[in-house]
Amino acid sequence: MYNTKTTLGLDIGGAHLKAVLLKKDKETILSNATILRTPLWQGLKSLEDHLLDIKKKWYINGGTKVVCTMTGEMADFFDNRQEGVNRISQVIFSVFGSKIYFYSTSGLTRSLHSSLRKKIIASANWHATASIISKLIPSCLIIDVGSTTTDIIPIRDHRVLTPEKSSDHQRLQTGELVYVGINRTPICSIANTLIFRASTVNVTREFFASTSDIFRLTGDLKEKFDFYPACDGKIKSKTGSQKRLARMIGLDLSDAKEKEWIGLARNLKGIILEELIINLKKVLNHYRISNNCLLILSGSGIFLGSELAKKLQCPSQNISETFNHVLSIKPELKEFSEICAPSVSIALLSIL
Amino acid sequence: MYNTKTTLGLDIGGAHLKAVLLKKDKETILSNATILRTPLWQGLKSLEDHLLDIKKKWYINGGTKVVCTMTGEMADFFDNRQEGVNRISQVIFSVFGSKIYFYSTSGLTRSLHSSLRKKIIASANWHATASIISKLIPSCLIIDVGSTTTDIIPIRDHRVLTPEKSSDHQRLQTGELVYVGINRTPICSIANTLIFRASTVNVTREFFASTSDIFRLTGDLKEKFDFYPACDGKIKSKTGSQKRLARMIGLDLSDAKEKEWIGLARNLKGIILEELIINLKKVLNHYRISNNCLLILSGSGIFLGSELAKKLQCPSQNISETFNHVLSIKPELKEFSEICAPSVSIALLSIL
Repeated sequence: MYNTKTTLGLDIGGAHLKAVLLKKDKETILSNATILRTPLWQGLKSLEDHLLDIKKKWYINGGTKVVCTMTGEMADFFDNRQEGVNRISQVIFSVFGSKIYFYSTSGLTRSLHSSLRKKIIASANWHATASIISKLIPSCLIIDVGSTTTDIIPIRDHRVLTPEKSSDHQRLQTGELVYVGINRTPICSIANTLIFRASTVNVTREFFASTSDIFRLTGDLKEKFDFYPACDGKIKSKTGSQKRLARMIGLDLSDAKEKEWIGLARNLKGIILEELIINLKKVLNHYRISNNCLLILSGSGIFLGSELAKKLQCPSQNISETFNHVLSIKPELKEFSEICAPSVSIALLSIL
Repeated sequence: MYNTKTTLGLDIGGAHLKAVLLKKDKETILSNATILRTPLWQGLKSLEDHLLDIKKKWYINGGTKVVCTMTGEMADFFDNRQEGVNRISQVIFSVFGSKIYFYSTSGLTRSLHSSLRKKIIASANWHATASIISKLIPSCLIIDVGSTTTDIIPIRDHRVLTPEKSSDHQRLQTGELVYVGINRTPICSIANTLIFRASTVNVTREFFASTSDIFRLTGDLKEKFDFYPACDGKIKSKTGSQKRLARMIGLDLSDAKEKEWIGLARNLKGIILEELIINLKKVLNHYRISNNCLLILSGSGIFLGSELAKKLQCPSQNISETFNHVLSIKPELKEFSEICAPSVSIALLSIL
């Protein structure tokens, strides 16, 4: 039993750290997975603390392979993304030693010396997921809806169609990266005007409410994935969310009924779905992919992916089903494997 | 000379306190004016400290009439706007005693007992300005572009056309209140996509940059009216602003030339102007006002008002010129009288 090989996969985002542990014996199993709050715009301490905690709780030692991908270098705590990659790597080295594999769009690497490599290490987590899925499924579109962003990744003939060196900026151009997620997106960035009581109303451009409030009211957001404090620092209940949404159109909670606030949340959800559809179609057109392609769904906003698939009448499957081709996942970790898809993917890539 | 009557006019916003001192002897003169940072979403301490400071520096005593208007009750530090009005009034009472006049859309009042009155005291500062201007100019549109919001106020035949009891919500419906200003508005709330290098690019929906960054780069924002820290807490230089704007489209400062960042800032300014024009036209249509009416311009974003007037080929004048009909303003206080228009207005209303 000491022949078991273990791999720790880390996906270091700006807002969340996602970590998984794979064990490979006769078969490969997902033996642990977690998602933790790491607001990197406040500094690196929360990341370091959580990594030390994982190291201890999951018994990570010299025999464990550590593989890492990141998007957290975008945080404005860093002067630029290069500095972000450097500072984040330093934290990982300090916790796990220097034998770390980083995922870059041209594969796993241990060398951080060349600035080219650093560049391709930044924001490559989407590519890790794409890379493993392209080995398992010939043609599909991965729709990963996270807390902050949505990735739309085209795969055809077992190839990731996005050019390897695509940056975030380029993917923001093609529609493959949409900066909307189910937790952290400010409501004032969704739309300039909203419909309320059949009237158009200008939105108050303050950080009064976030997408967490929408999906708390629509019942889509599970408590275990509801990590961040509310915008006003107050209670994360449905009433709290109604109060915050009310402010977005210059009203107080008592100015309307609960069903009206839920209606407003549903309107907002509809606007987000429309934007995702626009971007998805842009990607389909750009790569000349058929309209009824298979969608592979992942991320904490997987429910939005399902609704997209229904609206577009596309076949779909959750990414945990796809991982199942090569990975045994305990039922209680199924959801985590979908949310931590990039960390599962880099760990799998380093094993397969 | 001890017959001089002094009036202190206070406009308590969510982000700024604006205070003016009028002295009435043979003529009425604006003898002092200031604008101070009061982030009410962090609590009431900054407001209280600044008021105590003004009381001391401007020698405010029992002989000074204190008149007050507010919009700060909207801050999410308060549970609802009623609580906001109560808490803000308590601070004013504690600093200046109980003989305070509040501006409501039905005139100055000293009674805060009736909840109806409290309701009409909330967010009435626009009405104070409208009320005094309607006495001085028969027909016009006041365009007050502030740090956070823009008010568009219609006046015809010496009457304020907006119904007296209009709430913020109603004015957000008619286009009379637009939640965009020249300092605090998050860039991610301006537009979902931007044009950069002739390509459409999705915007990163994070609070990486604000309208301060736009107007610092276009050269419109004067340093003395540039109050708030930058979004990343870093330097408020042009380079700092370029760096922050770069992040809004997933780039670093070094990814483009200075003139490209300035171009991006100009694009954003154009989008803001377009939104203001849409709302202005909505107001004109709603009240059936002619397209070439006189615009009275005020607020720290008065430069945007001037550009609007030019684009729409409307005659315009700065509000300090209008105030000059009844008020003598020292040259060094001219700009402050334009930015603190509601506090000048309530002070004038209590004197005239």
